[in-house]
Amino acid sequence: MTAGAIPTKVAVIGAGDIGCGWGALCVAAGWPVAVYDTGGHAADAAIDTVARRARALVALDRAAHGIVERGLLEVQRARSLLQVVRDADWVIEAISEDLTAKQKLFEAVEQVAAPSAVLSSSSSGLPPSEIFGRVLDRTRCLVIHPLNPPELMPLVELVPCPETAERQMDQAQEYLRALGRIPITLKKAVPGYVVGRVAAAVWRECIDLVLGGVIGVSDLDRAVSLGPALGWAAAGPHLTYHLGAGAGGVPMFLQHLLRSFEGWWADLARWDKLEPEQQRALVMAIERAYAGQLPALREARDRRLGAILQGLEKAREETT
Amino acid sequence: MTAGAIPTKVAVIGAGDIGCGWGALCVAAGWPVAVYDTGGHAADAAIDTVARRARALVALDRAAHGIVERGLLEVQRARSLLQVVRDADWVIEAISEDLTAKQKLFEAVEQVAAPSAVLSSSSSGLPPSEIFGRVLDRTRCLVIHPLNPPELMPLVELVPCPETAERQMDQAQEYLRALGRIPITLKKAVPGYVVGRVAAAVWRECIDLVLGGVIGVSDLDRAVSLGPALGWAAAGPHLTYHLGAGAGGVPMFLQHLLRSFEGWWADLARWDKLEPEQQRALVMAIERAYAGQLPALREARDRRLGAILQGLEKAREETT
Repeated sequence: MTAGAIPTKVAVIGAGDIGCGWGALCVAAGWPVAVYDTGGHAADAAIDTVARRARALVALDRAAHGIVERGLLEVQRARSLLQVVRDADWVIEAISEDLTAKQKLFEAVEQVAAPSAVLSSSSSGLPPSEIFGRVLDRTRCLVIHPLNPPELMPLVELVPCPETAERQMDQAQEYLRALGRIPITLKKAVPGYVVGRVAAAVWRECIDLVLGGVIGVSDLDRAVSLGPALGWAAAGPHLTYHLGAGAGGVPMFLQHLLRSFEGWWADLARWDKLEPEQQRALVMAIERAYAGQLPALREARDRRLGAILQGLEKAREETT
Repeated sequence: MTAGAIPTKVAVIGAGDIGCGWGALCVAAGWPVAVYDTGGHAADAAIDTVARRARALVALDRAAHGIVERGLLEVQRARSLLQVVRDADWVIEAISEDLTAKQKLFEAVEQVAAPSAVLSSSSSGLPPSEIFGRVLDRTRCLVIHPLNPPELMPLVELVPCPETAERQMDQAQEYLRALGRIPITLKKAVPGYVVGRVAAAVWRECIDLVLGGVIGVSDLDRAVSLGPALGWAAAGPHLTYHLGAGAGGVPMFLQHLLRSFEGWWADLARWDKLEPEQQRALVMAIERAYAGQLPALREARDRRLGAILQGLEKAREETT
């Protein structure tokens, strides 16, 4: 069997937010998807959620109506692990971030998955060598970490085990590219991978600024959105600073601003526990700032995300 | 004299990257601008740079050709501090990040500026009470920190002195909104303000990931651009996590992922000096990754930025 860009079946295990996003993404590509969750209710609800999120992609011009509707006819709500995994070329684990649960799951999956199937975990930061610690043949195992929502965010982080075979990495990347995703492979696993670490660095400082009374929740969010995030979306951090001091490039930037950065680094938040009292204060501040309904906030976010993606695609076309 | 949205003249002091960006932005609004720099060559070059950058805004659909060309007729290359500041309603300092130099400059500016003029510093992180430490009347002084490039990035951080008058804050915000900027006011000054601190948190971790061999410069930049930055551009960090765990909002997110974040926080980079050897390694890695010419890289960045801004504006229109 040769590697193909289209799996005959994708198995999604775990019908939460991330699992449903994977489901919507595959449906929007017209791929047959089976969804399984140990909570029967979650799996039932997932079928509706996947349909709603796949159709939302059509409204955002990110998917074609005909393909989505055809794909939705092939969404299967699996009743068992055996049923979901059977005949799948790609098994996507999207259960909660619980190492033991993931280990047990993959131990069971290995027993029933087709020998050539790619087995991937959606973990956002656990070491792949531990996630797949009970799998005998880890050559086909890797972390494929999507961002939220997976059906809109282009980046996926790939974190192989030491044993992961080149061929399975290629296959995974082929699937992901066929889904319009942009896979980036880490050279080694670190806690939180790249995305989680960068996100953690940002969120800690943002929490600290809000709890320290420097700025309110919604002003902070707008400042990051319309400031640094916008800049980094157009050029990653290193390129941003390479372009940040005129014709001199990053050496000139360091000459002008390293002293500022060093002062700020020394002053940044460095706590690593969010105490219950701080959690309560943070939750209250966020809920006060975003008192609206979550579905409406999510829809607005997705609309902005879709519009940004289209803008970026337009900019890319203009160069080629 | 009542506060107006259009200054009769804007004085830009410092003809570097940020000063030229302010100049281009004001020109694109058709506002008369005078530019002064103690380095005569820089001021000469600035006139060309301002023109090029203002015209680039037309190419990006961010400014109207006629207004830019009319504005360019009114750009003045001032020969002295007195000449640049005289009759200006708004004095923008954009010299290098040197506290003493800024203090001396504003001491001199105060002697010659019109009594009602807004005096602003483009500092990216110094305390306004120190920047304006030698000014006798600080009621009209504040930091207005733009991002790079100022003519494209919508966010500006406003950091008042304790003495800054409400009226001058209003006037500054009126000017900025008339320039299409989005001003956010800090409740108190902290080193690096909000943007610098968030940027410092991100860049430290990104430098650490590259120097630690986890990922290469361009993969890191793409990962941040197409991942977290894209997400935060569509919804700031707090809103992102409020939407990150389905219907449960941020309490559910904390329940599911706080333990992960706490593990990452404990593991993040915490150095606050970039040693000369690390600087060299970083510069080499960045220059190797972006071996192309800076002007072409900058142009591509600006095109992406312009496209994202248009996308966001489109998404905003669709809601209203």
